[in-house]
Amino acid sequence: MKAVGVIVEYNPFHNGHAFHLRASKEASKADIVIAAMSGNFLQRGEPALVSKWYRTRMALMNGADLVFELPYGFAVQHAQNFANGAVSMLTAAGCDFLCFGSESGEIDSFFKTIHFLQTQQKTYNDNIKRLIDTGVSYPKAASLAFHQLPSSGQFLDLAKPNNILGFHYIKAILDQNSSITPLTITRKNANYHDEHFASETIASATSIRKAIFSSENHDVDVGQYVPAQTKQLLNEYFHHYGLFHRWENYWRFLQYRLLQSTAEELREIYEVEEGLENRLIAAALEASSFLEFMEKLKTKRYTWTRLQRMCVHILTNATKTEMARFSDKASYLRLLGMSTAGKEYLNRQKKLLALPLVSKLSAYKQEDILLDVKAARIYNMAIPFAQTKNMLQQEYSHPPIYIAEKDR
Amino acid sequence: MKAVGVIVEYNPFHNGHAFHLRASKEASKADIVIAAMSGNFLQRGEPALVSKWYRTRMALMNGADLVFELPYGFAVQHAQNFANGAVSMLTAAGCDFLCFGSESGEIDSFFKTIHFLQTQQKTYNDNIKRLIDTGVSYPKAASLAFHQLPSSGQFLDLAKPNNILGFHYIKAILDQNSSITPLTITRKNANYHDEHFASETIASATSIRKAIFSSENHDVDVGQYVPAQTKQLLNEYFHHYGLFHRWENYWRFLQYRLLQSTAEELREIYEVEEGLENRLIAAALEASSFLEFMEKLKTKRYTWTRLQRMCVHILTNATKTEMARFSDKASYLRLLGMSTAGKEYLNRQKKLLALPLVSKLSAYKQEDILLDVKAARIYNMAIPFAQTKNMLQQEYSHPPIYIAEKDR
Repeated sequence: MKAVGVIVEYNPFHNGHAFHLRASKEASKADIVIAAMSGNFLQRGEPALVSKWYRTRMALMNGADLVFELPYGFAVQHAQNFANGAVSMLTAAGCDFLCFGSESGEIDSFFKTIHFLQTQQKTYNDNIKRLIDTGVSYPKAASLAFHQLPSSGQFLDLAKPNNILGFHYIKAILDQNSSITPLTITRKNANYHDEHFASETIASATSIRKAIFSSENHDVDVGQYVPAQTKQLLNEYFHHYGLFHRWENYWRFLQYRLLQSTAEELREIYEVEEGLENRLIAAALEASSFLEFMEKLKTKRYTWTRLQRMCVHILTNATKTEMARFSDKASYLRLLGMSTAGKEYLNRQKKLLALPLVSKLSAYKQEDILLDVKAARIYNMAIPFAQTKNMLQQEYSHPPIYIAEKDR
Repeated sequence: MKAVGVIVEYNPFHNGHAFHLRASKEASKADIVIAAMSGNFLQRGEPALVSKWYRTRMALMNGADLVFELPYGFAVQHAQNFANGAVSMLTAAGCDFLCFGSESGEIDSFFKTIHFLQTQQKTYNDNIKRLIDTGVSYPKAASLAFHQLPSSGQFLDLAKPNNILGFHYIKAILDQNSSITPLTITRKNANYHDEHFASETIASATSIRKAIFSSENHDVDVGQYVPAQTKQLLNEYFHHYGLFHRWENYWRFLQYRLLQSTAEELREIYEVEEGLENRLIAAALEASSFLEFMEKLKTKRYTWTRLQRMCVHILTNATKTEMARFSDKASYLRLLGMSTAGKEYLNRQKKLLALPLVSKLSAYKQEDILLDVKAARIYNMAIPFAQTKNMLQQEYSHPPIYIAEKDR
């Protein structure tokens, strides 16, 4: 059985994702699709709209065959570590291909750009350093530094978010000597950061979330942009747990945490760089919402995303020491869900998997998974009181989701 | 001007406290009464019903002339450290007398008991150790050990809570070579721990709080047990801030804090002794209220009070390192409020005060006060959202309260 890997967040799963899954299977001619999916907190430093279990269900209902959780330590990370974690998981799971969407759509341009950058490494790094010293953020500096290189115009446009991710996926494949063959398809009709709907059926997850949160009861119909199962699962989640998760649900916890911490304690948290600790405490004292807090915190030096990720790490108490183990490769494969074909693949492949397969959390006694457990519990703290108790314990007891072929 | 000191919590200020203030002045013939009052968190490990500012106002309206804040590090403490902090403050403030209520009512019996225990120290300590090894709590062991000493029946009954406190006050006076003369008056009509009303006008603060919380809207009339000003200030607080503070208001913060901590991190918190850290996390996962949490935590080995104090320290993140400075003597006198006579006393006495007088927090740059600031901020986190912002900042800006003679 051939497998194609995808690296996803599904926040929430929409028609563009369904297209990506179908196209990945077509382009690779693989039998199954394996997804490395972020858990409850995401790369942009935000809680996912609904839990990883609901998002796993959405994925399985729409073409994914196996869903593994990208550990928190890789998921809430800048592109390079994010890519390292995801690629190492897909490699360990035995994927033959990795298929990602990009603005470019041409896989050769990725290899050429990586090669070009290797030959220009010193100039490139010097450019970045010089630009950062002028006070701009790292991503901005990297993009500008690239454009300052001679003849960079012939290569990939590294100002585009999905090109950047793809670049890091392929770099990770090369760095890790992975046997995965990368493929890319052109993203259709929606840009990653789009906040408004731009097509009849395809919209970015950002614009879908924005539409949902634009109404107080979150009852905006996003049905034309998402598969029927997504719509149903979103309704079910809201009905059951009383919310779609967003930062404001965690604001009081973050504020409390900041007010009970000393500057020294905050400096131990991942991504809290010199000087930010005092700004954090001062902003927590003055803000009455997460948005207000972020606006007080924001400087040219750091991107909004970077600061939000730091806030997630403060919320979950993810220290520099704990996060140090998540820069290179994943150390386990946590199974969130499988289809009939996925199950068959696992049965055949089980003994060949390069990492321990974790289906039941209580059977895996390693420390490296504790950050995921903590993140899941804290995610569930946003759920109204009466429900939280069971939710807090579910992390250890929730079995992988199984969706039989006849049910999808 | 002669001054008599009192050591108080006023949670809330009631008729028994008014009686104590009058009796203290009479017994000492002092011109003014100086109160060392706990801030927002109390010795039993609970948040105060209303803020220290409101409780200061109650005290000043009913006979206190100066109110100093007993620092958090002494206030949320077992009797010995509590007494050390309070006695050192009253000494530094220039008190000639200390007057406390006790079940005994005879000051000689306190001195005799201290002397007796000094002669029996080894046996007494051995008894305590042996009893603790059988699994009982420290206070219980201390009381039993005392009763096992030969002829202990002739001395103070150290099973009574106010006798224990008085014992430690006098021991602190002796240990600190304080020039304060201790006086005691017999407590009237209400025992410290009484949960029910036992008289027409005098009731314990415990029974008053219990009555208030017994109705959902907290609109039980406790007017017969408290001065008119207390009643008015309680109403005002509830009207203004929407709550009387109790543990349940902080439960979600405590639960969140426990779930984001590792066992190692919890062990750094003051009073988290070996073995408790894992019980704490397990109980936090299962409980849906603070009461349920405490019931899961409770063992014969620790008293309820001791465990509640530990929970306050977890809530405020008071570490063993930070608390180490609060065992012996206070290092500042934070002024919460004054009457006309209190103001006059301060003007005359200012240069003789043995500790820095802190009236404006922003002018006092020492680290030793930061725990009080943190405790005040976290106390205010229970106040509904819209109000909290100003409340968080008030700690640095709130001036001491002044009540002129004509207004009381």
